Amino acid sequence: MLTRDDCARLDAQDELSALRDEFALPDGVIYLDGNSLGALPKGAVATLSKAVEQEWGQGLIRSWGEAEWFSLPERLGDRLGRLIGAAPGQVVVCDGTSINIYKALRAAMEMRPDRKVLVSELGSFPTDLYMLEGALIGADGYSTRLLGRDDDDIANLLDDQVAAVLLSNVDYRSGRLLDMERITRQAHEAGALVIWDLCHSAGVIPLELDAIGADFAVGCSYKYLNGGPGAPAYIYVAERHHDSARQPLSGWWGHAAPFAFESSFRPTAGIRRFLVGTQSILGLKGVEAAMDLFEGVDMQAIRRKSRNLCDSFIQLVEQHPDCRALRLASPREAEERGSQVAFDFAGGYAVVRAMIEQGVIGDFREPGIMRFGLAPYYLRFTDLFDAVEVMADCLRREVWMDPKYATRETVT
Amino acid sequence: MLTRDDCARLDAQDELSALRDEFALPDGVIYLDGNSLGALPKGAVATLSKAVEQEWGQGLIRSWGEAEWFSLPERLGDRLGRLIGAAPGQVVVCDGTSINIYKALRAAMEMRPDRKVLVSELGSFPTDLYMLEGALIGADGYSTRLLGRDDDDIANLLDDQVAAVLLSNVDYRSGRLLDMERITRQAHEAGALVIWDLCHSAGVIPLELDAIGADFAVGCSYKYLNGGPGAPAYIYVAERHHDSARQPLSGWWGHAAPFAFESSFRPTAGIRRFLVGTQSILGLKGVEAAMDLFEGVDMQAIRRKSRNLCDSFIQLVEQHPDCRALRLASPREAEERGSQVAFDFAGGYAVVRAMIEQGVIGDFREPGIMRFGLAPYYLRFTDLFDAVEVMADCLRREVWMDPKYATRETVT
Repeated sequence: MLTRDDCARLDAQDELSALRDEFALPDGVIYLDGNSLGALPKGAVATLSKAVEQEWGQGLIRSWGEAEWFSLPERLGDRLGRLIGAAPGQVVVCDGTSINIYKALRAAMEMRPDRKVLVSELGSFPTDLYMLEGALIGADGYSTRLLGRDDDDIANLLDDQVAAVLLSNVDYRSGRLLDMERITRQAHEAGALVIWDLCHSAGVIPLELDAIGADFAVGCSYKYLNGGPGAPAYIYVAERHHDSARQPLSGWWGHAAPFAFESSFRPTAGIRRFLVGTQSILGLKGVEAAMDLFEGVDMQAIRRKSRNLCDSFIQLVEQHPDCRALRLASPREAEERGSQVAFDFAGGYAVVRAMIEQGVIGDFREPGIMRFGLAPYYLRFTDLFDAVEVMADCLRREVWMDPKYATRETVT
Repeated sequence: MLTRDDCARLDAQDELSALRDEFALPDGVIYLDGNSLGALPKGAVATLSKAVEQEWGQGLIRSWGEAEWFSLPERLGDRLGRLIGAAPGQVVVCDGTSINIYKALRAAMEMRPDRKVLVSELGSFPTDLYMLEGALIGADGYSTRLLGRDDDDIANLLDDQVAAVLLSNVDYRSGRLLDMERITRQAHEAGALVIWDLCHSAGVIPLELDAIGADFAVGCSYKYLNGGPGAPAYIYVAERHHDSARQPLSGWWGHAAPFAFESSFRPTAGIRRFLVGTQSILGLKGVEAAMDLFEGVDMQAIRRKSRNLCDSFIQLVEQHPDCRALRLASPREAEERGSQVAFDFAGGYAVVRAMIEQGVIGDFREPGIMRFGLAPYYLRFTDLFDAVEVMADCLRREVWMDPKYATRETVT
């Protein structure tokens, strides 16, 4: 049995406990939804207020140079790159994840013109599959193969017809972790390129894109990276592909001479060719504050705490007599799991809503997945203990019988 | 001769003079660059601070519903729509101008599948032409015709092969205004669709998209709309096209049931099908503050003042003995001009830089265009008088002989 005293002891031993002070967290809330929207770094308040009042208000157009707005996408990309194992010059922060998926897919298709199959996963976060559909509009002769529908082993889906593989390394519902190194190697052996969607792993799992020989990667910065609501996404392109990779959203920010106003497109050298046009500076400033916060943070320590949090949470739920109806929907082994824990329960929707009402914010995915994203920067083990008490209370009260909690809302 | 006293009299009669108080303008600066980055509305400080500290910090994930983040793109679109003559339900604020151009181009190409020619203008802001190139990657058999290269009369470029016409209604250098109503009609008579780029007109020129029967329009919100640096752009699609228009950046925000997590894309009804993925909320909040400022503002009064400002500025420059070397590069007739005035001068680069040093912020475009975007919300006629005195001083000093001003910087 894990007691509240045990949890307090774990908190006292927590090598990352000081990080919690860097966040502005609401009183009376236990936030188990860091995988939907990360919490507000205190530094973001000053960074954004400076960007608005000084850089925009006082600097006006001069801030493109003087406040270095123009280079922000790649400067932030380099800092974010450290968290995902990318050497400088291979990441830009820009646009949204879906748009960056499109760029990577179209670039990969053009780099493998004789191959007409794209591989992805049926259980992908849907926008990945939707963008795949979009990338294939007007592309004659292409087809897709989906892991989990056409086969359960990626190896069986790979052959000399496959141009590219698009996969999330962490399943957005179960938190199941894929072996990026193995899949990248298998895809390369088949002559295919790989596009990794890192939305649910960057910032909580040490990633090694360069070391595993990754081709492309994309992700958002508003989940575990704490960049702010809808913060700009990022795209990684391995340096060896920079000259051959071309993407069709060829706006002026990707031009070799953006201020020469030439009438034809000439892609710039390097990663900036994956930019399109002017970026939301306020959006990027949220990411900057997040990168300030990550400065010096040891990703291995983050991963250690993340695993301990998830293991403890599973134990706390499973040991509680009132939580017996819940079935673990995440891998039990920490090595196979990201920084989230899911439980399957028919009344899960109502339970999550009732928990939110009591200040424990989790998340729900149809049909019955109660999803808890455990962010190791600001969560304490005692928070988990208290959260499970609230969960148990909601289960005891059978909140799924109450229409107040059970009736679906369109937007949650 | 227009004297400073005359200018002061014009300021005293200015029906829009109260609007200036709504902006936070730096001391000692005369800002003639409202067509590059609009000034900071005072209300944006509070709107953004609330978005950061309360909505993000305190509300966290709950703010998608409680702060109505999810509907922000179309709510802002409806408000922006009033300024461009679009009835509600036809505009969403999202992504960047270049990306929205791509969506409109690809949608238009698919709506006219038997036509393989796209028409644009050689003198377009280059990103429009670059996106056109991008949209044609992999599209077999297509070609382009450019106004100003293939012919100077749009009528001669239109025939039954033209799928779509992409044009800016205001030339970004000269400020020359196109006749949107006539060109839209001519294109429609030829069976083509029209995509209007409104970057340099929205917010200063009353536009009537619905009334002229426009098909598509795009634009940014960071120039005369004052939405903030790199603020999200917008896209207008006429309601009659909503069912047939399909764009390939088919992300989950454009899905009919975004939270049902279906594995296939089904576009939603209405304008939201032109959304892709999660938007930068902080970026959108800047646009919200701008829309608050425009609430109740009469676009006809804006246009009246804009014309008077531009006419006065031309007169002030042309009457000044030290400005004789400058040649007007904008139409002389106000009806043919947007809210900007350009002068051509070989030493223009140095003059603009020297003026900036003295607090008069204008803009330069190669090879010799000194460009002044006159925003009628915060500019006074006396500002123009004082600005021309500074310009005259720089010309008298022959600043183009001084490498300090004459040496080109990469980013300005």
